[in-house]
Amino acid sequence: MIKTISWDRGAVVMIDQRALPHEERYITCREYREVIDAINDMTIRGAPAVGIAAAMGIALGALNLPGKQLKEDFYSICDAFSRTRPTAVNLFWAIDRMKSRFEKEFASTPNIKAAAVKKALTEEALRILEEDVRANRQMGIHGKRLIKDGDTILTHCNAGALATGGYGTALGVIRAAHEEGKKIHVLVDETRPLLQGARLTAWEMKNEGIPATLITDSMAGSFMKRGMVNLVIVGADRIAANGDVANKIGTYSLAVLAKANRVPFYVAAPISTIDRHTRTGNEIPIEERKEKEVLRFHGTKIAPGGFNAYNPAFDVTPNRYITAIITEKGIITAPFLKGFKESGSQGFE
Amino acid sequence: MIKTISWDRGAVVMIDQRALPHEERYITCREYREVIDAINDMTIRGAPAVGIAAAMGIALGALNLPGKQLKEDFYSICDAFSRTRPTAVNLFWAIDRMKSRFEKEFASTPNIKAAAVKKALTEEALRILEEDVRANRQMGIHGKRLIKDGDTILTHCNAGALATGGYGTALGVIRAAHEEGKKIHVLVDETRPLLQGARLTAWEMKNEGIPATLITDSMAGSFMKRGMVNLVIVGADRIAANGDVANKIGTYSLAVLAKANRVPFYVAAPISTIDRHTRTGNEIPIEERKEKEVLRFHGTKIAPGGFNAYNPAFDVTPNRYITAIITEKGIITAPFLKGFKESGSQGFE
Repeated sequence: MIKTISWDRGAVVMIDQRALPHEERYITCREYREVIDAINDMTIRGAPAVGIAAAMGIALGALNLPGKQLKEDFYSICDAFSRTRPTAVNLFWAIDRMKSRFEKEFASTPNIKAAAVKKALTEEALRILEEDVRANRQMGIHGKRLIKDGDTILTHCNAGALATGGYGTALGVIRAAHEEGKKIHVLVDETRPLLQGARLTAWEMKNEGIPATLITDSMAGSFMKRGMVNLVIVGADRIAANGDVANKIGTYSLAVLAKANRVPFYVAAPISTIDRHTRTGNEIPIEERKEKEVLRFHGTKIAPGGFNAYNPAFDVTPNRYITAIITEKGIITAPFLKGFKESGSQGFE
Repeated sequence: MIKTISWDRGAVVMIDQRALPHEERYITCREYREVIDAINDMTIRGAPAVGIAAAMGIALGALNLPGKQLKEDFYSICDAFSRTRPTAVNLFWAIDRMKSRFEKEFASTPNIKAAAVKKALTEEALRILEEDVRANRQMGIHGKRLIKDGDTILTHCNAGALATGGYGTALGVIRAAHEEGKKIHVLVDETRPLLQGARLTAWEMKNEGIPATLITDSMAGSFMKRGMVNLVIVGADRIAANGDVANKIGTYSLAVLAKANRVPFYVAAPISTIDRHTRTGNEIPIEERKEKEVLRFHGTKIAPGGFNAYNPAFDVTPNRYITAIITEKGIITAPFLKGFKESGSQGFE
């Protein structure tokens, strides 16, 4: 199994996703700032994986603090992580979990030793990782019944083992169907500008032996029109309380095209991706990344010198385009707010 | 003005579109087979430009034939051009024009000298070039009234001077609005896999001083949803008699997204792109190009080794998604068959 991120004796180890699929190399972060850099430069990406990285980074930062500074500096470490990437809510959710654990330790044992708090924080980060993998497996169990033998499934970006603690959200569902013996075929959107589909999803599919074919993002609609796509499954970076979904740029287009062609459109995401504080997709901040990611293709300049580009990393798909959201608690359909409440999702009770 | 293709004392000179935007170099074809290679390897591309190249290539092939072989070999030269690219109808239209001229010369002067036929064929090829530029200017005059001051226009691929004899179809309309002093902004779809938007349209916009910004194909829908696109204008490779349009892969998706967001969707193309023999878009053959165009970029592999890709170069947009077709004869709206007839388009009378 792919080791996206792990904790190794006081260090955070990650596979370097910028080097994939050509090179499988790992980086070891011994300072929390290195974890921040890894999130910023996309060494690690994918909403759940970024949440786990932040949790481990906070645990690492706390571990390296002199005991007497722990109380003073813990929150500034958390703040540094919260400034990395604005859209995926799993990041903020993970930071909040680490803060809660920190506060709970002090509340339960007023004279607690710094070492014990540090140990608790490491424990919490590892728990977040384990819970994520378990949630993905559950999503797979729920979601695989939406896939029929012989189906062709379109996916966008990478919502796989590399985007999570392991197994994956959208790709977890696909994996589960494959493991069950269903004959499936995956159409992989290359996902410009950073090519997470061509580089990462293709790599995961190949490693797993799941039949898959690469297409450019612009081809997806045409394949739907030609009846060559049975369903679409994507991940999510933030789901608003009404079921609007922020995900990798291009997701909205796929959803509109799926509806126009009567192709079911599924989102697979853990409950931690649902943000009850965001009422609708309009409130989700969309990260604007550097122009050069668009002006260059895999490092090669493609546009004329001095040309401008826009680079929003995400878009928002209105809930009306979403057939169902696959979570570890089950498959939720519209009206989503009601579904989130009934599933017992955190904060919706 | 950009010299996409020209006739220079018994040779066909073209700008090498594979080298743009980084290098402005020209190739000179002295044998018709070199023109065929240039069409096949995308040195020259764009439906009207390919038609002109074929016409000039046929004239060149005829010119190089010994007089006594002219009658015998002329048709095999034409056939060789007809096997280059299957989708754009302008190619077949131009070949037919050359054949008609060839036959007309023999019919009008039974004992005509080979030299006179060769001269007539060169004349015909140059006439096709001139007519194309004139048609583009007319499209500009008709189409510019669809553009309002302050509009942002989305375009896909390159339907510019480089895709035609000069001036352009979709970009011709944009040029005309700009020349009239309208303040416009162009969103340029990069157009994977061959990046004609990022490389060619961006280059034309920059040369012309028309404000423009590059986006990935996957962003277009999101910008429409955010209200940042006032209209879409694209070119066409073949228009069926019912108004269905074959154009660069990704066009269909834009049309569906435009309709979903109530953004007008215009196609600009000369009458020679309308194929009365093709009743609907279903009958248009779609060229499938090599996988490596998707798997690689500028020689750099992006997907894992051994991974497969699909590479349909075009898609078909059903007529119901098209607000209007801008031709040199005027702006034609649905029902298109009736509009084509009323415009006096060739063969529809």
